[in-house]
Amino acid sequence: MTEQDADPTQAPQRGARRGSSANRKGLVIVNTGDGKGKTTAALGVLFRSWGRGMNAEVFQFIKHTGSRFGESRAADKLDIPWSAMGDGFTWLSKDIDASADMARAQWDEASNAILAGERELIILDEFTYPLAYGWIDVNGVIDVLKQRPEMMHVIITGRNAPDELVEYADLVTEMREIKHPFNEQGIRAQPGIEF
Amino acid sequence: MTEQDADPTQAPQRGARRGSSANRKGLVIVNTGDGKGKTTAALGVLFRSWGRGMNAEVFQFIKHTGSRFGESRAADKLDIPWSAMGDGFTWLSKDIDASADMARAQWDEASNAILAGERELIILDEFTYPLAYGWIDVNGVIDVLKQRPEMMHVIITGRNAPDELVEYADLVTEMREIKHPFNEQGIRAQPGIEF
Repeated sequence: MTEQDADPTQAPQRGARRGSSANRKGLVIVNTGDGKGKTTAALGVLFRSWGRGMNAEVFQFIKHTGSRFGESRAADKLDIPWSAMGDGFTWLSKDIDASADMARAQWDEASNAILAGERELIILDEFTYPLAYGWIDVNGVIDVLKQRPEMMHVIITGRNAPDELVEYADLVTEMREIKHPFNEQGIRAQPGIEF
Repeated sequence: MTEQDADPTQAPQRGARRGSSANRKGLVIVNTGDGKGKTTAALGVLFRSWGRGMNAEVFQFIKHTGSRFGESRAADKLDIPWSAMGDGFTWLSKDIDASADMARAQWDEASNAILAGERELIILDEFTYPLAYGWIDVNGVIDVLKQRPEMMHVIITGRNAPDELVEYADLVTEMREIKHPFNEQGIRAQPGIEF
């Protein structure tokens, strides 16, 4: 290991200017790839930002309206605004037009929240799917992101992030599956861990 | 997209047997790779597990004892047991022997907690580093993990996860950096987002 490996995010107490206002900027963060941890890492940022008293809101796409996962239960308990609008994963959906309409309605809500400018962090969970399917125009989304307040962070999760979004984003991570118990051992998703 | 793409963790309400006790098992999860999101995804699981009322504990290695990040502030507010023992990232450390001793002392605490069997989730954050440096024997760690209660989940984060650990783990994800604002734009880590 060399000093080059040092991750500035891991030791933020070093360096007097770190985190000073001159270096602060709202980031557009994309978590993509076929592996686990895309939504989960967004939830980790939500946890961290809540620890600092930041004002955050979560918009979930695709996932069932009214679904009760560990994360939405936690958000309820912490009074973090959270909405899910969808009918489940769309390759299982019987009515693609209805799925597309729900995604567009959710984007209306989310883009209003972005433009209202009151949040410090907005998470658009599974938002890459309606973009990848062409239900929502990625260039229109980027136009909205460009109009957000300078200090607002936006996190977008999901597979197949469109190239235009990757190009525009500040921080893009690909989660790659190395080993997965559902495939290899026939083990199912564990409550509290994966949902 | 085909049904093959459906991620069982994303739509757990489908399938009557999903999450039934027959399918439950404590997982050993490793988040590794050079990209962002390893610790962050572990925090996301912590958030989710807290939403389900699970009993979790976090042990941080390497990070400065007493450091106050967004995540430790959140854990304090939620009464989640959390300890950090370290003197910062070791390639910056002046006294490697002291760093190694601190890591071993922290592993003593963590392994006691694993063997005590009272937690449903234990996070060993940045634990791959003392393993990769040879300060702690990976086979001894695996022996402890094998003795944990069947339903206990353990998450280990950090770069350069040893092969033996990857081999033993149930779920391994590599976080790959696609785009990083610290490198490309000279932007520093943002409080509440990255620490």
